[in-house]
Amino acid sequence: MSIKSLFTRLMVAAALVVGVTGLAATAQAASKHGKPGVVIQISENNPATWNLALNNARNLQQALGAKNVNVEIVAYGPGINMLKFDSEVAPRIKQASADGVAVRACGNTMKAKKLTEKDLEPGVKVVPAGVIEIMNKQREGWAYIKP
Amino acid sequence: MSIKSLFTRLMVAAALVVGVTGLAATAQAASKHGKPGVVIQISENNPATWNLALNNARNLQQALGAKNVNVEIVAYGPGINMLKFDSEVAPRIKQASADGVAVRACGNTMKAKKLTEKDLEPGVKVVPAGVIEIMNKQREGWAYIKP
Amino acid sequence: MSIKSLFTRLMVAAALVVGVTGLAATAQAASKHGKPGVVIQISENNPATWNLALNNARNLQQALGAKNVNVEIVAYGPGINMLKFDSEVAPRIKQASADGVAVRACGNTMKAKKLTEKDLEPGVKVVPAGVIEIMNKQREGWAYIKP
Repeated sequence: MSIKSLFTRLMVAAALVVGVTGLAATAQAASKHGKPGVVIQISENNPATWNLALNNARNLQQALGAKNVNVEIVAYGPGINMLKFDSEVAPRIKQASADGVAVRACGNTMKAKKLTEKDLEPGVKVVPAGVIEIMNKQREGWAYIKP
Repeated sequence: MSIKSLFTRLMVAAALVVGVTGLAATAQAASKHGKPGVVIQISENNPATWNLALNNARNLQQALGAKNVNVEIVAYGPGINMLKFDSEVAPRIKQASADGVAVRACGNTMKAKKLTEKDLEPGVKVVPAGVIEIMNKQREGWAYIKP
Repeated sequence: MSIKSLFTRLMVAAALVVGVTGLAATAQAASKHGKPGVVIQISENNPATWNLALNNARNLQQALGAKNVNVEIVAYGPGINMLKFDSEVAPRIKQASADGVAVRACGNTMKAKKLTEKDLEPGVKVVPAGVIEIMNKQREGWAYIKP
């Protein structure tokens, strides 16, 4: 083995190590040190709680800048009523969506309550299961808030 | 130093680097990329909330497969009533346990309310403190849900 | 390139890899394996919930030792009433502060309700936004509890 071929082999090995650890570091950075995210759970049929959640989302965006924080509201169970087109907070849902807050409805709850997307405020998207959406966001490093 | 001895030394050094970073990556993988876990907190004396929690556990298992997700319900404070043998949801607690959901009662609450394991639905296990159990699960990378 | 200069270059490269991955491992260790922390959210105007939160804080400190766990109570929205000097649980807030529990009030809520620090139990500190305080603690690896 010549010095040159040794050097080449070692550089390839080093690049692999740096690459692998770099990937791990990036995944970690994304969750703890990257753009922060907050998932807000709504599982109660209570307009006061809905308004508090919408205040939370607005305060996060105002304090950090809407571009610097991911905010998602996930409603399931009795909380699904928050997202109906005739909900008491429908105008605030519309505004939150326009401001870049992701608003998600639980597909399992929709089925159980025989609701379709037409029953929801436009802009709201349906996810298969609210609880899995909330779990996944936490696994990606987002904070959890239940107002 | 010969090329051969240099190569040996470098391979040992590289193995150490890979080993150390591998350990770190494994610890991380266990929490963020391993089998997902969800700890569900019950601290309210409210059968509607209990049923919602049991729906959450069932939905998680149905969507991901019971073998692919860890689900634990931890009850404390006024929520302890959920786990009594004569609870309104006792049949569902029995079913959840049979389905592989871990169901845990807070030992501190048990003492305060003078309850013993005989007062609980069979299959429920007592942990020293519900709040510490919930903290530990989150530290292990589990998501948190309060229905 | 001589063997010696090759060795030197490779050792510098290796030191960089170990350094970078070491930093990542340290950041991780601080959150998952360091001193545990629990942030307790109060967003309800309900003395029963306030007492449950104070029990949680006390149980954490008693089980782990007050020096071995960080506990912080953050109140916002209707939960702010917990922290007023004339609150039903004011004596317990004073005791918790003396015991090393950090007690924080949401500045946004204070403004909205026209409250000042004089309205709060001494020892309580005001943070700009409760929801951001709770998010930051979770990003630092603290567990979240909503009693």
